[in-house]
Amino acid sequence: MASRLDEFRSYRTTMNNRIAEIDHLGVRRFFNLDSAAYKDGALSGKTKELIGLAASMVLRCNECVDYHLIQCLDAGYTDEELMDALNVALIVGGSIVIPHMRHAVETIDLLRAEQKKTRLT
Amino acid sequence: MASRLDEFRSYRTTMNNRIAEIDHLGVRRFFNLDSAAYKDGALSGKTKELIGLAASMVLRCNECVDYHLIQCLDAGYTDEELMDALNVALIVGGSIVIPHMRHAVETIDLLRAEQKKTRLT
Amino acid sequence: MASRLDEFRSYRTTMNNRIAEIDHLGVRRFFNLDSAAYKDGALSGKTKELIGLAASMVLRCNECVDYHLIQCLDAGYTDEELMDALNVALIVGGSIVIPHMRHAVETIDLLRAEQKKTRLT
Amino acid sequence: MASRLDEFRSYRTTMNNRIAEIDHLGVRRFFNLDSAAYKDGALSGKTKELIGLAASMVLRCNECVDYHLIQCLDAGYTDEELMDALNVALIVGGSIVIPHMRHAVETIDLLRAEQKKTRLT
Amino acid sequence: MASRLDEFRSYRTTMNNRIAEIDHLGVRRFFNLDSAAYKDGALSGKTKELIGLAASMVLRCNECVDYHLIQCLDAGYTDEELMDALNVALIVGGSIVIPHMRHAVETIDLLRAEQKKTRLT
Amino acid sequence: MASRLDEFRSYRTTMNNRIAEIDHLGVRRFFNLDSAAYKDGALSGKTKELIGLAASMVLRCNECVDYHLIQCLDAGYTDEELMDALNVALIVGGSIVIPHMRHAVETIDLLRAEQKKTRLT
Repeated sequence: MASRLDEFRSYRTTMNNRIAEIDHLGVRRFFNLDSAAYKDGALSGKTKELIGLAASMVLRCNECVDYHLIQCLDAGYTDEELMDALNVALIVGGSIVIPHMRHAVETIDLLRAEQKKTRLT
Repeated sequence: MASRLDEFRSYRTTMNNRIAEIDHLGVRRFFNLDSAAYKDGALSGKTKELIGLAASMVLRCNECVDYHLIQCLDAGYTDEELMDALNVALIVGGSIVIPHMRHAVETIDLLRAEQKKTRLT
Repeated sequence: MASRLDEFRSYRTTMNNRIAEIDHLGVRRFFNLDSAAYKDGALSGKTKELIGLAASMVLRCNECVDYHLIQCLDAGYTDEELMDALNVALIVGGSIVIPHMRHAVETIDLLRAEQKKTRLT
Repeated sequence: MASRLDEFRSYRTTMNNRIAEIDHLGVRRFFNLDSAAYKDGALSGKTKELIGLAASMVLRCNECVDYHLIQCLDAGYTDEELMDALNVALIVGGSIVIPHMRHAVETIDLLRAEQKKTRLT
Repeated sequence: MASRLDEFRSYRTTMNNRIAEIDHLGVRRFFNLDSAAYKDGALSGKTKELIGLAASMVLRCNECVDYHLIQCLDAGYTDEELMDALNVALIVGGSIVIPHMRHAVETIDLLRAEQKKTRLT
Repeated sequence: MASRLDEFRSYRTTMNNRIAEIDHLGVRRFFNLDSAAYKDGALSGKTKELIGLAASMVLRCNECVDYHLIQCLDAGYTDEELMDALNVALIVGGSIVIPHMRHAVETIDLLRAEQKKTRLT
């Protein structure tokens, strides 16, 4: 059975491909600009992923939170660091952010379980 | 004549003092929690100020942007680093963030002018 | 098996009927006002459905996006026109709108498949 | 010199009259519906004004906050009750609500000063 | 089969426990502050739950709406009173709130069915 | 004395130039993409300006509303058409949009007065 994360990744890839296929110039350029925003620059890509995570939390978008958590774990953040960033988002955004806090913590746990499994195989 | 930043600082201090005077337990605790969220922890206070800035931008609050820019300059961020963080906020939040981008860039310029003046005296 | 769109239509009808049954005067009037807002006036109903779609995208409400897409296809918009409206919403609302872009494009594809099937039968 | 509250009241009245003059059927009906929503019903008008205040706070609209504070003081709420409602809004909405907390507390103080002056004359 | 409400309660408890286990000081304090905000004070806890419900509606968070509806029914609100509060939220927040109105009315019906069942046993 | 609209235009130009001068690649590209989104395409530029206006209203950004109203008047919309679009935004976004409705109607009146003056000279 596909996990929640696998379903997210698969749906995201399928629909991003579908959008790419439609090939609207403005949309395509925006997607490129979005990818470029998280590359190393004056700030490291690693720092910018954390900013993307916090912005996704306060704007309350679970799909965006999941995406940035995947990137943040790839970038090497510890659970303690992620929790500290989520805490800032919680204070800025208030209790309305709590459901996304629950979602984010579950996603981190799922991603750590995947990492563990990968390392074992 | 008081500058825009001086007026902001003065109004902010006056009203925060007034709120402190009212002394509602929940409000007081929230203000303390808010201050504590930006202290060094698993992430540095410096990193957390940048997160606070980006969150303020995407939530489109000029007063919050000004507050976090003051903190970010104190923390030693360069203009290039701040612009890179503002760019992530712009991409996440879209063109509706542009008026706050104009405000943020003006605030950075005003703060740098203050720094220069202080160093000269 | 009921499709995602069928489930949406069925749930929407069931609950709107339930709300109508409760018969709160203010709520009933608001629902009427909401329907009336998309009728032909100084602007055509067709134009106003497109505005409703873009507003739903930037406010990030998938159910509202689906509803207005159904109306927009009924009104005769082409895929190219819808994509152009979605692009404006993406630029205004930023990358936080991307998950709703994926959802909207999937909904358009599902609705076109329904239209094709209807024409064949 | 007109106070901040006098300017708000005057601008609000002038522009509401201008909007009434334009006489768009949908807009007129919405304004009526909005007024009707705060009349005594299953809940008292007094309770509904407090709900309107808290909703305005979490949606971060100073003009709406001022309007509902005027109504709440007319309805007889004490400062302690208002502060308790503002605290709920602060916890729900987070630190991004703080600038509106400062604004709301200032408005309450201005309104109490008006009440005092009226009682003296 | 677990109902929608049972699933919500179970997921909420599991993840809140998981977050408690992580024990981030700021997060833990915010959760405590959030609980404290709805206790009897200058306003009754009952009134504050209604404010929490309306704030959750206009901020468009179904999980928060469900949570506050559970609390509101425990506090003894009638359906007519809840509908009157939901109407204020609908007028303040507009048609974008309608999907959450459908969700809220369904939740009220589910909760009343639970109450009936409990009373019978 | 500079009018509100002149001040807005002047500040907007000054700060956009300042941002252009800073020349952050991502920011510059986003500004270009934003301009491009309103050019004639599958939808006319005129239709897209109206979408931009409605999106700005529901996202509650007065500067964005003013900008799109300037563009909409240039594009030839009548007051009746603009009011019909503003009405859709009001219904979608609710009473929290009313302060922006007042602002938008005032801006339309100011722009019409400018047009009249220009035609007379």
